Amino acid sequence: MNEAPAPEELLSRIRVVLSRPSHPGNIGAAARAMKVMGLTRLYLVTPERFPDAEATARATGAADLLERATVCATLDEALADTIHAVALSARQRDLGPVPQPVRPAVAELLEQAALGEVALVFGNETVGLSNDEVQRCQAAVSIPTNPAFSSLNLGAAVQVLCYEIRMAAYAGQKMPTSPRRVTPNVSRAATLQEQEGFYQHLEEVMIATRFLDPAKPKRLVPKLRRLFGRAKLEIDEVNILRGILTATQTPPRD
Amino acid sequence: MNEAPAPEELLSRIRVVLSRPSHPGNIGAAARAMKVMGLTRLYLVTPERFPDAEATARATGAADLLERATVCATLDEALADTIHAVALSARQRDLGPVPQPVRPAVAELLEQAALGEVALVFGNETVGLSNDEVQRCQAAVSIPTNPAFSSLNLGAAVQVLCYEIRMAAYAGQKMPTSPRRVTPNVSRAATLQEQEGFYQHLEEVMIATRFLDPAKPKRLVPKLRRLFGRAKLEIDEVNILRGILTATQTPPRD
Repeated sequence: MNEAPAPEELLSRIRVVLSRPSHPGNIGAAARAMKVMGLTRLYLVTPERFPDAEATARATGAADLLERATVCATLDEALADTIHAVALSARQRDLGPVPQPVRPAVAELLEQAALGEVALVFGNETVGLSNDEVQRCQAAVSIPTNPAFSSLNLGAAVQVLCYEIRMAAYAGQKMPTSPRRVTPNVSRAATLQEQEGFYQHLEEVMIATRFLDPAKPKRLVPKLRRLFGRAKLEIDEVNILRGILTATQTPPRD
Repeated sequence: MNEAPAPEELLSRIRVVLSRPSHPGNIGAAARAMKVMGLTRLYLVTPERFPDAEATARATGAADLLERATVCATLDEALADTIHAVALSARQRDLGPVPQPVRPAVAELLEQAALGEVALVFGNETVGLSNDEVQRCQAAVSIPTNPAFSSLNLGAAVQVLCYEIRMAAYAGQKMPTSPRRVTPNVSRAATLQEQEGFYQHLEEVMIATRFLDPAKPKRLVPKLRRLFGRAKLEIDEVNILRGILTATQTPPRD
């Protein structure tokens, strides 16, 4: 086993992704919330207004995070090369990952950050994340709120999670050990792109063999994403699975 | 010993005191942060501007807390009848209480709330709490921040502490401690026999397509078993996977 990465190193591998934010003030508040907890990498997916004076004003000393923010056209672009993404979502979505309480979700995020790039994904202020966006993520997290008034501000949600991340990253300097990862890794975790490459390949084969009718998909793809998402694919496994798919596409030569 | 008060009752005994706040936006953000975590009692000591449209705008659905806020001339007035007050203060003050980490400080606050009225006291955005104000409090709490940029926004600080208070108040009640992503089953778990049927089917396809050479199996099967074993297959998933395998074995009829 390698030495666990230092807390600063772990924090540097965490992207905060704001998908379709409406209010530039919240972008600025998120940047400040991140920096104050030692996170630095802000990704914005089609922000309504950015850059914007209001974002800069609310960021105060964290304007450097706004300057270095990555603006993306799609969530997939923001998640490129990540191995684990956690969606903020209060409720269970159809076939999406089950929202976990904050502390186990943050412990898992840091565990994964020890292996590669990870992301925390926040939705639009009014409508949150779409089902499709949540399905892109391997895990979901829910912040407990007053059931009678659960309207947590976007910047405040970023603050709570970044705070928990800092608390966990520096807790006794020891990484939380997950009870669940029983199988030691044989190879590194597959990146999101590598996973998507597999799903696309699988879909091609399913369509070519008439197993999947694109006109009547019957939720086959989300069901398969859910299955392989639970397993957390390693790169060797993606290669084996794609090898099998390729083999079925190639008629054997005798 | 009496029965411990219910979490809602504990939360109702906690005052959030903002001393000399400069920006009405922060007062509104604090009200929203409180209400979203189930706290209701806001006290304002000589606010620079209050009431104010900006406070109301930032409070959104928590404007009722602003309407019922108690405006005081002095901190002593805001702390009247409390048995325990905790000052937010990053550094040790002359003769003041030693700043505690968040979780022990919040645990103590709730313990005291079981006995009577308590308060959490936040200072001015720029200068924080004065030594005199901190000395009025029985305890102090410090939120960990990035030493290179420790400028936590006032509303964000209120959010973090109210979140921790809610977490602690409901701990052991119903705060789910689920150790692991237990994706709710879409279907029942596959039996061992059903799983074995899938592995056998997969092996047949791998051999037929020449992906697997039975004379040189290269640990392919154990690797695939490890992958699907991690996922814990459900019966629906076994059926889908076997459906795909069957489809690859059957040439499409046009």
